[in-house]
Amino acid sequence: MRVSFEELHETLRRALLKVGFEQGRADLCARLFAETDRDGVYTHGLNRFPRFLEQIERGVVDVNASPVCVEAHGALERWDGRSGPGNLNARQSMERALELSRRQGVGCVALRNTNHWMRGGSYGWQAADAGALAFCWTNTLPNLPPWGSARPLLGNNPLVIAAPRPAGHVVLDMAVSQFSYGALAAYRSRGERLPVVGGFDAEGRLTQDPAAVEESGRPLPIGFWKGSGLALLLDMAAALLAGGLATHQIPPDPLEETRLSQVFLAFDLNSLEGTETAAHVADDIVASLEGVRYPGERTLQIRLENMEQGIPVNPEVWEQVKQTRER
Amino acid sequence: MRVSFEELHETLRRALLKVGFEQGRADLCARLFAETDRDGVYTHGLNRFPRFLEQIERGVVDVNASPVCVEAHGALERWDGRSGPGNLNARQSMERALELSRRQGVGCVALRNTNHWMRGGSYGWQAADAGALAFCWTNTLPNLPPWGSARPLLGNNPLVIAAPRPAGHVVLDMAVSQFSYGALAAYRSRGERLPVVGGFDAEGRLTQDPAAVEESGRPLPIGFWKGSGLALLLDMAAALLAGGLATHQIPPDPLEETRLSQVFLAFDLNSLEGTETAAHVADDIVASLEGVRYPGERTLQIRLENMEQGIPVNPEVWEQVKQTRER
Repeated sequence: MRVSFEELHETLRRALLKVGFEQGRADLCARLFAETDRDGVYTHGLNRFPRFLEQIERGVVDVNASPVCVEAHGALERWDGRSGPGNLNARQSMERALELSRRQGVGCVALRNTNHWMRGGSYGWQAADAGALAFCWTNTLPNLPPWGSARPLLGNNPLVIAAPRPAGHVVLDMAVSQFSYGALAAYRSRGERLPVVGGFDAEGRLTQDPAAVEESGRPLPIGFWKGSGLALLLDMAAALLAGGLATHQIPPDPLEETRLSQVFLAFDLNSLEGTETAAHVADDIVASLEGVRYPGERTLQIRLENMEQGIPVNPEVWEQVKQTRER
Repeated sequence: MRVSFEELHETLRRALLKVGFEQGRADLCARLFAETDRDGVYTHGLNRFPRFLEQIERGVVDVNASPVCVEAHGALERWDGRSGPGNLNARQSMERALELSRRQGVGCVALRNTNHWMRGGSYGWQAADAGALAFCWTNTLPNLPPWGSARPLLGNNPLVIAAPRPAGHVVLDMAVSQFSYGALAAYRSRGERLPVVGGFDAEGRLTQDPAAVEESGRPLPIGFWKGSGLALLLDMAAALLAGGLATHQIPPDPLEETRLSQVFLAFDLNSLEGTETAAHVADDIVASLEGVRYPGERTLQIRLENMEQGIPVNPEVWEQVKQTRER
């Protein structure tokens, strides 16, 4: 089943109004969810929306809360997300980082007490649309065993790096685990093996069997010990810069995952000399890949397809969201 | 064979004086090499020194050149490394990023036209010693095939992330390839298989045979497609920020590898509130690993051992460096 972008946006917007969002915020929050499906990241759009509503119901997400600046040091600011909706908080934080970068060349917003930002790539596209180079990352609940342990002591801490390119931005949006639990479930339900090793089985052997990894709770960090170190440092950097919680302090129940720490870092390429050639630099680098797909390329293809043909939605989730009741 | 830190430092210093370094620069450059061996990174200390001398001989490295600031935008500066010694250029760039961060909360130096920085971790330790959180990365010559290609179109672009911690800094220093060529050679010469898949063999099958990967020239990026994207974005970010060359423009001959682009990013944790607790945050996070080794932990152990027992040196390379002739 496919629906138009407008219909998806409108349906989500109406649901958000019912649970207490004010107009402008409902519109933007719904748009961020709808754009996620439009771009083919189906795990973090409509399909994630019921869990988002449940977190509102539980009081984990406060629909009316906005971030406030708690410390400002030139190009670096600390904000408190006050448990507001994660995508609105993240969007506003990247906007502020962009603003700081226009004044100082580089701008950084470190955000604490925020919620799941849904699709991290959104904030990379946002920055690249503004002509900026950007990095952002978040910590998460503990869901990834470090190399050398069978217990999920680290988060899979998604990292986003975005570079603007008029012919199509280059946007990397990756968790530090080789496969998310969502991806493992998708392979399992299709009856497929993983294309590469994805974790350990219950006996501690590396395996390409998605169900075995789900069962053991031992997915692999990318690059084995390397991704394990990367996840740790991203968490430390987020917690230290934001003055917020680290992964080990975040409740392991996905419905209770909250008070995350995030970092938004923007570089104003427009202030640099030879910016008229930045587009050429980006084009040249993409061309040097000799046709190998770059991060963001497929996103753009899916976006065009979905805008033309409508956006695929799961009929059950679609019905459920349509019937969202007034709080 | 082991020598004291002082003897190693002095021998390298004397060699550098012979090839035209002035006093202060010889001392610092030699110290950075010696500290690399002291910390157990034997691939990038003394053993790398003869290649460094050869690059000086060829005119790839200009012993007398220092970086100059070419653009300043608040907290972001572009510097030109003018083909100076890579470790001196990198050290000075991180120093400048730290200085900027003390004024602006965050500071970034993007450096072009520089040479191999030798051990990237050095600049992470430097920042952490100053109480800062830091990121730095470099592009390299093309030595890594992107996921989906058999040709080395990407660099393995080492990334360093460092967080200060009084009981021992946490310093991640990782190339984006699963194993460096140096590591592959080491496994091969010990007659060992790789602990995990490290690349493709000549028939395009994933393999744990180090010699097969050396032969095919197809080492793996960490996390397969994920590290491939990460390497690309680190290169784009470095080239765009520094206004310098990208990997595909750097000569593939290791002796001619030059005009690299690098980024040094420092965050002044001391300016943030609750800094007295930053040490506790870092300690808490390390403790949450339940004894799993953190990046930098082993470095510190080896450092103590080597300072006590002397630093292992390869006798042939040691003799060769001792006999460095006046230019």
